[in-house]
Amino acid sequence: MTGTLTIAGLGPGDDALVTPDVTAALAAATDIVGYAPYVARVRPRDGLTLHPSDNRVELQRASEALRLASEGHHVVVVSSGDPGVFAMASAVFEALEEQPKWQGLSIRVLPGVTAMLAAAARAGAPLGHDFCAINLSDNLKPWPTIEKRLRLAAEADFAIAIYNPRSASRPEGFGRALDVLNEAGCGERIVVFARAVSAPEERIETVRLREAKPEMADMRTLVIVGNSATRRVGRWLYAPRQAR
Amino acid sequence: MTGTLTIAGLGPGDDALVTPDVTAALAAATDIVGYAPYVARVRPRDGLTLHPSDNRVELQRASEALRLASEGHHVVVVSSGDPGVFAMASAVFEALEEQPKWQGLSIRVLPGVTAMLAAAARAGAPLGHDFCAINLSDNLKPWPTIEKRLRLAAEADFAIAIYNPRSASRPEGFGRALDVLNEAGCGERIVVFARAVSAPEERIETVRLREAKPEMADMRTLVIVGNSATRRVGRWLYAPRQAR
Repeated sequence: MTGTLTIAGLGPGDDALVTPDVTAALAAATDIVGYAPYVARVRPRDGLTLHPSDNRVELQRASEALRLASEGHHVVVVSSGDPGVFAMASAVFEALEEQPKWQGLSIRVLPGVTAMLAAAARAGAPLGHDFCAINLSDNLKPWPTIEKRLRLAAEADFAIAIYNPRSASRPEGFGRALDVLNEAGCGERIVVFARAVSAPEERIETVRLREAKPEMADMRTLVIVGNSATRRVGRWLYAPRQAR
Repeated sequence: MTGTLTIAGLGPGDDALVTPDVTAALAAATDIVGYAPYVARVRPRDGLTLHPSDNRVELQRASEALRLASEGHHVVVVSSGDPGVFAMASAVFEALEEQPKWQGLSIRVLPGVTAMLAAAARAGAPLGHDFCAINLSDNLKPWPTIEKRLRLAAEADFAIAIYNPRSASRPEGFGRALDVLNEAGCGERIVVFARAVSAPEERIETVRLREAKPEMADMRTLVIVGNSATRRVGRWLYAPRQAR
């Protein structure tokens, strides 16, 4: 029996944002591997084994998924959003590099609607012009690298999608990021705080950056800092297509 | 009768990448407005009027959609990929700003799988670390702005997704972009040329940037320039989660 490994994105939360490709992969799976809250989004059924795991054990989880596939299982590794954006795909390829014996396995990556796209859609079109995405988690990169990227992104006049702005283990990073952006002259930029997009408890808030407070973000918030031209029209905001 | 305007993303091409949300909106529509090749992806049926239009008439198309909605139609404006990324959402909000009388209309933006996510999934996980997206079309922004952003993106060590690298009307831009990135020290970076992702004629090619040629891209190509740490494992490439 030949196993398969599929690395799939479940989108931001609402089943109406899960692609048919991913739905079909879940229906064909024998095993679901992932961070517990994402595994919990998959409906249990006969013949399907769920393997929920804790946060911050990505490599271990990836190795488990590869091992199961090598034993003939049809494994789906689930991430929220898109699996390639600050999610499980990189971890699986890291694990694969460490274990060359698994490199012949049949692997597929199925894209999904990543958080910034869902958040942008609720707010209007803040990513309608050039933009960047920065993961504020400093578990895996030094803080000075994050600060440097924020400064260069401001200078490039990118809209900036900030993933993982805040967590209990590093509550101060996001406040420092706001300071960096204020110092870089972004105080008048419009910022979107998009919490739990597409879930019942969704909340969208927009403020000028100089008025933004660290506590406006939590673990379930995606932050989008508009570019210098981002403007409001009615309840919406958008980045004009034209640039200077 | 109260009309509605839905701005929807059809994903990169394959129906298996269209969200159920978008499928439902198309099923409830009376009118589909968009660039002809995207409108052609919607199945005709009784009660549905298709309004295909040419490229580069985004504002006019957006105004037509708003007018139809104001007359009571249920209009879906379709884009390829995600409607908020270098697509119709910004144009609709621009048109809305010009025509305040339409600002009371019921408007929704439905996200989709944008080209860079689909391209990244086919290649592995080149967007697994911080990245940016730059539209190389200079119809709406001056070339020096594009060049400046490329240089800053290289300095920030972002992976760089390049949309619209090349078209018949401006064949030389992409070659200049490659020159800028080579000069910025990115010659050893791995580049993905992803053409027609999820369509039958899909083609994925990876080379070092110093070996990349302008003619490797055409109108249907999405280019991803890896960051300095992006590496190969078997037939895949990925950006490690860890940064220096």
